[in-house]
Amino acid sequence: MQITKTLQELAEYLGGVVRGDGSVRIAGLAPLDNAGPGAITFLANPKYAAKVAETKADAVLMAPGGEAYGRNVIELANPYLGFAKLLTLFYTRPHPVLGVMPGAIVGTNVTLGAAVSIHAGAVVGANVTIGERTVIYPGAVIYDDVAIGDDCVVHANAVVRERCRIGNRCKLQPGAVIGSDGFGYAPDGSSYYPIPQIGIVVLEDDVEVGANATVDRAALEVTLIKRGTKLDNLVQVAHNCRIGEDCMIVSQVGIAGSSTIGNHVTLAGQVGVVGHVSIGDNVIVGAQGGVPGSLAANAYYSGSPAMPHKEWLRVMGTLPKLPDMRKKMTELEKKIAGLEALLAKE
Amino acid sequence: MQITKTLQELAEYLGGVVRGDGSVRIAGLAPLDNAGPGAITFLANPKYAAKVAETKADAVLMAPGGEAYGRNVIELANPYLGFAKLLTLFYTRPHPVLGVMPGAIVGTNVTLGAAVSIHAGAVVGANVTIGERTVIYPGAVIYDDVAIGDDCVVHANAVVRERCRIGNRCKLQPGAVIGSDGFGYAPDGSSYYPIPQIGIVVLEDDVEVGANATVDRAALEVTLIKRGTKLDNLVQVAHNCRIGEDCMIVSQVGIAGSSTIGNHVTLAGQVGVVGHVSIGDNVIVGAQGGVPGSLAANAYYSGSPAMPHKEWLRVMGTLPKLPDMRKKMTELEKKIAGLEALLAKE
Amino acid sequence: MQITKTLQELAEYLGGVVRGDGSVRIAGLAPLDNAGPGAITFLANPKYAAKVAETKADAVLMAPGGEAYGRNVIELANPYLGFAKLLTLFYTRPHPVLGVMPGAIVGTNVTLGAAVSIHAGAVVGANVTIGERTVIYPGAVIYDDVAIGDDCVVHANAVVRERCRIGNRCKLQPGAVIGSDGFGYAPDGSSYYPIPQIGIVVLEDDVEVGANATVDRAALEVTLIKRGTKLDNLVQVAHNCRIGEDCMIVSQVGIAGSSTIGNHVTLAGQVGVVGHVSIGDNVIVGAQGGVPGSLAANAYYSGSPAMPHKEWLRVMGTLPKLPDMRKKMTELEKKIAGLEALLAKE
Repeated sequence: MQITKTLQELAEYLGGVVRGDGSVRIAGLAPLDNAGPGAITFLANPKYAAKVAETKADAVLMAPGGEAYGRNVIELANPYLGFAKLLTLFYTRPHPVLGVMPGAIVGTNVTLGAAVSIHAGAVVGANVTIGERTVIYPGAVIYDDVAIGDDCVVHANAVVRERCRIGNRCKLQPGAVIGSDGFGYAPDGSSYYPIPQIGIVVLEDDVEVGANATVDRAALEVTLIKRGTKLDNLVQVAHNCRIGEDCMIVSQVGIAGSSTIGNHVTLAGQVGVVGHVSIGDNVIVGAQGGVPGSLAANAYYSGSPAMPHKEWLRVMGTLPKLPDMRKKMTELEKKIAGLEALLAKE
Repeated sequence: MQITKTLQELAEYLGGVVRGDGSVRIAGLAPLDNAGPGAITFLANPKYAAKVAETKADAVLMAPGGEAYGRNVIELANPYLGFAKLLTLFYTRPHPVLGVMPGAIVGTNVTLGAAVSIHAGAVVGANVTIGERTVIYPGAVIYDDVAIGDDCVVHANAVVRERCRIGNRCKLQPGAVIGSDGFGYAPDGSSYYPIPQIGIVVLEDDVEVGANATVDRAALEVTLIKRGTKLDNLVQVAHNCRIGEDCMIVSQVGIAGSSTIGNHVTLAGQVGVVGHVSIGDNVIVGAQGGVPGSLAANAYYSGSPAMPHKEWLRVMGTLPKLPDMRKKMTELEKKIAGLEALLAKE
Repeated sequence: MQITKTLQELAEYLGGVVRGDGSVRIAGLAPLDNAGPGAITFLANPKYAAKVAETKADAVLMAPGGEAYGRNVIELANPYLGFAKLLTLFYTRPHPVLGVMPGAIVGTNVTLGAAVSIHAGAVVGANVTIGERTVIYPGAVIYDDVAIGDDCVVHANAVVRERCRIGNRCKLQPGAVIGSDGFGYAPDGSSYYPIPQIGIVVLEDDVEVGANATVDRAALEVTLIKRGTKLDNLVQVAHNCRIGEDCMIVSQVGIAGSSTIGNHVTLAGQVGVVGHVSIGDNVIVGAQGGVPGSLAANAYYSGSPAMPHKEWLRVMGTLPKLPDMRKKMTELEKKIAGLEALLAKE
């Protein structure tokens, strides 16, 4: 079933303003380059402004005041966000409500909200609470005493271990693990005694966790990931970490135990953060950066060990010259020795 | 049941030539060092040529013209490949054909090729097509509308999400995830709005994906991995990437969104590639390399940020001298100041 | 049900000595800072010794001879280890013995020790042996011909592939994969022929494997992880590796094929080790280190490529000065040219 909407309806939906013909009917979205009739496209990057003239789309989302080249336009402040919202409108559907399917395994004393879907092959332990409209896919395993909020999606083979708590509108991609034991051992001579990890993990609302990412339960208290933060695939969050709101933790990042990350922090791919440090609000760390100590807020760092990004750019720009510098230094040394000899003779 | 073959039969199987007694019976393979009677071994690395004299094996695979030390030999151009083919011949068996086992969960409108095996505990969604002789192990979850080709192996707890397409002779190791949502969000003030990831993943023929590796579905179109490419364990391929044919993507490599990798590229362990770049055919990037921009074809790069491998070797060779260079530079500075003072006096 | 014990009972349990009132009843543990009445706390780091004066705990574990500030104390040589043991005593319970639950899938010719628990949704293949008191959680998949020892825990969705052997008191966190195929291919022109990986993995006693970590089976023989070694989440161990006893392999470490690690080695987070090298006993490699060759025993290395840690500290301390050094070098060069010109004139 294909949805169609008039441009005017879409503008109202997005809180934007139509320039041109608001009655044109839109049936889908496409990039500027390969949009066709019936589609709306978007201009987010001014670099591509000239493409508006050539697009085959029937309408364009753009920032107010842009050159429309005679196209029908919805003006709104954030066209990229508008595009994302229209993708949701045109191409996503609410999950069908399946209830507890035959082949699902559900323990005793489980509280299920209205309109949940527990797929065949999912396993839900005892004393679990699952909120309204939440979907648990096949192979997902929810241990005992877990609470999951409303409108969550737990994809196939994701695992939530005992007593962990997950907010509303959270999404776990396939294979994500929440609440595995923290890596804590007490040295006992040359061997290691496993320290019981009796804490939990709390994911606040709107947290998303990527495929095969892992978030360890705290040793004693809580590993906390606050509202709106997104973890990409294969990210590791160790025990006792606290990650703030609206952070972007990109794929393969590792955060060692008991570190604290502020709000609105971006850690790019493969960044590593050592344990027991603090990263301030709005920090960005560039890809493959290594964070060996605490980082002040509102700054961009790169490198391993991390340094201010601009400094790192200068260092990395110089690094390839290092062998030449060494050669040059030997030459200079000789020249100086020559000058010294010359002057000694005089 | 043990297979035995004559040396002549093996030579014909491999397309090689016997030197010595073709009637000797071979029952298995072993390395040069610890092969015994009845075994065939192989010499791939000329460094070990002298071991041929001492091996207890009854026969040796080697390149044409090698010193046989009186051994029975099969000569063929690629002895290592021959060894691999004989391993397959002697030690692997076709999967028993199990059909849909009791305890497997199979949705409606599923098309199963001849001789498939769907293990107990596997879950196959609706409208799925699975080719001939393909094996789906326990706990693997195939979402709706997926197509999987012939002779594939989907190991335990691997996941293929909705609408993804997998070619023939593909292998997914345990826990591999194909088609998880791409990490795409539109900033909305300080929060992030999830962009629906409505594309798919396509794995062409002979693609293999390692344990707990992840390949994200495209935002709009296709994340593509072409024929013959192998991904090792814990590799991350982000949304919209296109990886060419016959690439070797070693463990823990991460490739960010919308990057394009050519044919026959090798990315060694823990390499990171940023988004929206292009890597040419036949490129090699050394372990832990970081690729911040596009790389020209037919070259070997190392380091983070990546540079030509030979340049990197020189830089890394000089790096440990850096503190001494700094000290030396201070000395030179003083000497120059001394010379300048001396000359000023004169 | 809450346990309480007298201080004297706890001292005997730990092999320590009471100073103060041994009859005080203890009902739990807490950190120095937020312990309350009924709790015992511990002082492991002398830095916090003054906090003993202020803690609200009823007793303190500390090293012999420490200042007790009038508190009831258990003196023992390793207070941190004592704390870990009391955590186990107070907060962990033996798994309830569940037997083979309805919904578990168990193959033919399986040998189960006394008091095992095979959860609903777990899958155990044919000819498997599982030791006493071992627990297999939902979604875990044990392939045919596996042997698992006593007192093991295999968490949800972990996978143990065919013929692998697991010792006693081993723990696999959710999603861990043991025995996936090694990444071995023989080049065949531009394509790659998969080399059958017919070996196995052996985990000795007391080995623990983190969430979504992967250990590949050997090509021909054994990938071996010796007694007491702990692998953190998302670690990769490639085929044919041999890892010694009591090693700590921290999250996201990758060890390439056929490398050998000694006893009591620590590889910090995100370290990479290339293939076919050897790391001596008691080595430490700092976070994000890259090990390109063999490392001598009893030393601490850092950096990529790894160098002795102290040398690396000096190099990293100098690195940010590199652009200034380059500028300075150009100045020195000019000065020398000036001096040479001056002297040439004379």
